[in-house]
Amino acid sequence: MEDVIKLSHGSGGIETLQLIKEITKDIKLRKVGRGTGLDELDDSALIPLGGENFLAVTVDSYTVNPIFFPGGDIGKLAATGTINDLAVMGAEPLAILDAIVVEEGFPKRDLQRVLDSFKEVLRSEGVALIGGDFKVMPKGSLDKIVISTVGVGIVRRENVILDSGLKVGDKIVVSGTIGDHGAVILAFQLGIDVSNLKSDCEPLIRIMRRVIEIGGVHAAKDPTRGGLLMALHEMAEKSHVTIVIDEAKIPIREEVRACCEMLGVDPLSLACEGRVVLGVDSEVANEIIGSLHDMGYKDATIIGEVKEVEPGLVLAKSLVGGLKILEPPIGEIVPRIC
Amino acid sequence: MEDVIKLSHGSGGIETLQLIKEITKDIKLRKVGRGTGLDELDDSALIPLGGENFLAVTVDSYTVNPIFFPGGDIGKLAATGTINDLAVMGAEPLAILDAIVVEEGFPKRDLQRVLDSFKEVLRSEGVALIGGDFKVMPKGSLDKIVISTVGVGIVRRENVILDSGLKVGDKIVVSGTIGDHGAVILAFQLGIDVSNLKSDCEPLIRIMRRVIEIGGVHAAKDPTRGGLLMALHEMAEKSHVTIVIDEAKIPIREEVRACCEMLGVDPLSLACEGRVVLGVDSEVANEIIGSLHDMGYKDATIIGEVKEVEPGLVLAKSLVGGLKILEPPIGEIVPRIC
Repeated sequence: MEDVIKLSHGSGGIETLQLIKEITKDIKLRKVGRGTGLDELDDSALIPLGGENFLAVTVDSYTVNPIFFPGGDIGKLAATGTINDLAVMGAEPLAILDAIVVEEGFPKRDLQRVLDSFKEVLRSEGVALIGGDFKVMPKGSLDKIVISTVGVGIVRRENVILDSGLKVGDKIVVSGTIGDHGAVILAFQLGIDVSNLKSDCEPLIRIMRRVIEIGGVHAAKDPTRGGLLMALHEMAEKSHVTIVIDEAKIPIREEVRACCEMLGVDPLSLACEGRVVLGVDSEVANEIIGSLHDMGYKDATIIGEVKEVEPGLVLAKSLVGGLKILEPPIGEIVPRIC
Repeated sequence: MEDVIKLSHGSGGIETLQLIKEITKDIKLRKVGRGTGLDELDDSALIPLGGENFLAVTVDSYTVNPIFFPGGDIGKLAATGTINDLAVMGAEPLAILDAIVVEEGFPKRDLQRVLDSFKEVLRSEGVALIGGDFKVMPKGSLDKIVISTVGVGIVRRENVILDSGLKVGDKIVVSGTIGDHGAVILAFQLGIDVSNLKSDCEPLIRIMRRVIEIGGVHAAKDPTRGGLLMALHEMAEKSHVTIVIDEAKIPIREEVRACCEMLGVDPLSLACEGRVVLGVDSEVANEIIGSLHDMGYKDATIIGEVKEVEPGLVLAKSLVGGLKILEPPIGEIVPRIC
């Protein structure tokens, strides 16, 4: 068997993390000064700017298939996903750059439509587009379009939120229903009617500003590839704690649940593109939930808490009593989900 | 005829510039504060950091075909090209992020080889890798690999070099032979023996540090897609000046010239990946050439000067006397050249 890259290496689950660690392990310069980088593998890297500010920088390549889907398109996703990677660090997005690669023969009206969605997100969130790149690959060498988006933001030291910040006793909060984006993409790829599904693709800046204002946010992550399950695993691993989840409390739309049951996939492994998982001080948990409800995020809820059992463990309360181990997502999950 | 994206839109010539201007014309937030961005379309965008420093940020997607070529590979190119986009702004590179998309089935040993080249450039130039992304596209939806590289650097206000900085009387300098990279890629794509050709792919940091130390550098650009010709046109256009070139003085390797003649392409439109075009004060021009020679860049030479004829014009001294207009590059040139 040849040693080749498989779809599972790009799933955002455990194989992706292992591959990234393997190919970067011999790099010595892994961060700038007292910033963060390859060791932390947070949603953005942080570069100290002197004084009390850090620069947050992130890049993602968006390959979603189909490029137009209920609730968004690759343009909206490429702007939103990158802005969210800044927001969950506690950063204020400042500027975006985008490198676009399209296939020869790609319709100009589709490019315009995708870019209109991209620009609309930037406009509504007040983020500047300051540069980029545009390449064309000959017909047959790329399926439609790939957009790589760079996000640059500023975060004050006191507002920096890392995956490693969870504390024993913290409550785990999700800001809305789980798996909507993943379900719509998966169903579409399998040719299933998705008229009752819609991606949750949405910027998280307003939510993050509000919860930072309240305070007591110890960790935050947008559960994209690998879904809620991978986000919880990364937070538990980096914070050296155990997360105990009450699965019955996880908000999942009936349509998403039905779709997952039909297709035999775990909704907890499906990407969200407009949700955040927070680890918050138990004293502010109810205030945060109340605030999110007031902002219209009526499905925001506490789904679990942080315990001191074993570093990196994610457990779920079993319906028949006791606790079961939730393994991190493995395998292909959904190709080209984002 | 359907309105679709053509290879020429990605050539780095006049069609690329027109398309980028068209798709970004309705964007209001085009820079951060008193920085630079979509209006300048320089090799990096600049974000003011307060005080005397600017942040330089750039992104490029590398799609070169073949991925391994004499003188380099897509990994070396992806690190070098981005570092050079920082260097020609006068910036010191600080950190790199890379978003890699590979095709399912891509050999792991090729990925390792590409990344080893990428990391070797970072190591030798002292630049940190602080983050990135890794995605996999199903077999048949991407030809091998695309690497999008983000560069972040710092530049002091007094060292900022813009394409718009040319002054009448400046000398135009190139640091070495022209078109080496483009010729090797083009020949390879056409199945021609390239054993006597080699890409010029190389970081420009040392050169840029030295010429900034000397002073009098008014404009700098690495002539990648669109080649020397497009770089001269962009500088002339943005600086509202005319550049007059003495074609006989442009250093072109005999092998590159022969290859271009055989294939009917203009070496001035072929990409370089380790050369810089400088506009320098005439008083320092000879000192800069001398320094470049001392550093081993023995082909560095003055190829022309800046005149006040008509904004945006590039002229060449004709061999039979008089001046001829050099039009900017148009058409496909070489697909997937970088």
